[in-house]
Amino acid sequence: MPNAWHLVKRPNGMPTAADVELRAFDLPPLADGLVHVRNRWLSVDPYMRGRMNDVKSYVPPFQIGQPLEGGAVGEVVESRDPAFAPGDMVLHMMGWRDEEVVAASALNKLPAMPGVEPQAFLGNLGLTGGTAYFGLLEAASAKPGDIVFVSAAAGAVGSAVVQIAKARGMTVIGSAGGADKCAFVTELGADAVIDYKAGSLVKQLAAAAPDGIDVYFDNVGGDHLDAALALARKDARFAICGMIEGYNSGEPTQLRYIMRVIAMRIRLQGFIYTDYLPRLGDFYRDMGGWIASGQVKSRDTVVDGLEGTFDAFLGLFSGANTGKMLVRL
Amino acid sequence: MPNAWHLVKRPNGMPTAADVELRAFDLPPLADGLVHVRNRWLSVDPYMRGRMNDVKSYVPPFQIGQPLEGGAVGEVVESRDPAFAPGDMVLHMMGWRDEEVVAASALNKLPAMPGVEPQAFLGNLGLTGGTAYFGLLEAASAKPGDIVFVSAAAGAVGSAVVQIAKARGMTVIGSAGGADKCAFVTELGADAVIDYKAGSLVKQLAAAAPDGIDVYFDNVGGDHLDAALALARKDARFAICGMIEGYNSGEPTQLRYIMRVIAMRIRLQGFIYTDYLPRLGDFYRDMGGWIASGQVKSRDTVVDGLEGTFDAFLGLFSGANTGKMLVRL
Repeated sequence: MPNAWHLVKRPNGMPTAADVELRAFDLPPLADGLVHVRNRWLSVDPYMRGRMNDVKSYVPPFQIGQPLEGGAVGEVVESRDPAFAPGDMVLHMMGWRDEEVVAASALNKLPAMPGVEPQAFLGNLGLTGGTAYFGLLEAASAKPGDIVFVSAAAGAVGSAVVQIAKARGMTVIGSAGGADKCAFVTELGADAVIDYKAGSLVKQLAAAAPDGIDVYFDNVGGDHLDAALALARKDARFAICGMIEGYNSGEPTQLRYIMRVIAMRIRLQGFIYTDYLPRLGDFYRDMGGWIASGQVKSRDTVVDGLEGTFDAFLGLFSGANTGKMLVRL
Repeated sequence: MPNAWHLVKRPNGMPTAADVELRAFDLPPLADGLVHVRNRWLSVDPYMRGRMNDVKSYVPPFQIGQPLEGGAVGEVVESRDPAFAPGDMVLHMMGWRDEEVVAASALNKLPAMPGVEPQAFLGNLGLTGGTAYFGLLEAASAKPGDIVFVSAAAGAVGSAVVQIAKARGMTVIGSAGGADKCAFVTELGADAVIDYKAGSLVKQLAAAAPDGIDVYFDNVGGDHLDAALALARKDARFAICGMIEGYNSGEPTQLRYIMRVIAMRIRLQGFIYTDYLPRLGDFYRDMGGWIASGQVKSRDTVVDGLEGTFDAFLGLFSGANTGKMLVRL
């Protein structure tokens, strides 16, 4: 019997075990145009928290009583569509479950890339790597020579931002929580690292970037955004990608330095990976090249078994992951 | 004896009479290249508050013990420069005083524009009109058909924004404080007006703009900015021009809706009038045309006499002005 994580009620603040349930569900019959897929890797990502609210946003909300969804890599076990055959590895959005019958049109066959593992298509070659790439180079218009600050630099998106920025000749300052994560950010090639648990962000950023910053890649919001505003220099550009601090709190964001937007002519730009899908070819070419050359590496945090998926998701909000958080089935 | 308002100490929060002093000062001798000017109109503007702090910003801070500065229109009384003759009307930055000896290079002779009064060069044809024009059309990339929200719409910049937006075929919602100012904003041609003193900004803006807004022109910051974030629709653009709410308070800005920047791909762009000086020709052509055709009108709030200058300045922060605040000498 297949199993899936179902949303049973909408969370109020931080989600709890009472909001979800792992339970069996029925697969639809395998009709023409459908493909039976057994999932191998599931992605958990912070944006899924937003889909748990009943709010129209850039992706529709999850429905009560229905399985949660998310990026997944699976293997075709049976196909009623000529484009797919058993053994094919596919990328799709029917995550949070161990198997599913999926419309062929909703599946993407993984391209054969020597040396690239299938789960990379959930990470550096997928949503998180693409978010880093387009956010840094398009939303923030980052250029060689820029001084870049990135929050959650040990996370999936942040660690890709650090490496892309270095590959493109920028100076990079990353923030992370705790000595281990900071060491990881240094390993990734960052020029300076700030431990946000170790003291004032504004003071630490001022010390790390005495001339200020040109670009801020925001995964966090809150105090990190405020510190970036405090240190931005003229014509700075901020790519606003995530505000994980606020996803569960419901508290307003307090900004002491927002007025610097005027004097420094700062540009803040919100963006989403899918805005740039027409330019996916550039991303695959550049990111594929950097992975092949070793300029972009991944370090995943892997949880084993479908049962662990919800805790893996919650771990995103307590900093449990270094690099991409994945579930292996 | 000439008199000038001097800064005697740096204000902490809202400036008070103890921070400034109106006193006599000595004019330098009229050497070659200098012009003796008697001021006729003085401008007071919110940005001057920032120059009272000892903070490097887009304009240098005022110096303790020195006269304050600001836009002024004066009449040449004596000239040691061939470009100026007695009777010429000139625009310059030696405001806050009744007369001054100024370098010819720091004076701009007012062009002869039939039907345009000299003080217009401190308003709709000067800093405030230019701020409205470039902020709306450049920083916010506003286009015909856009739904535009502008705060402080009865103020000098805001009233110009309302009229420019209507002249360019946009829908305009303005906010102002109190029935008289709201009536003025309606007179200017706004499609809807919100009295920010009459209740929740978010609820009022949602009622006035049921489909949301494409553009926000921010003169105020704080709750107005938050309401604009709450109602922004996809690809909205915010021109951040002033945050008068925060100039004196020192309190952090609280934003409940900042996260919508991501879902709605909002762009916030800080800007300053002088960024666009190379395009001043476009501004004079368009604004001159709108003034001539009656599409842009001015209503000034006029204070008489140099003694009233400081109170006129303070009035900017309590909403004492409708339209441009000017001092007539």
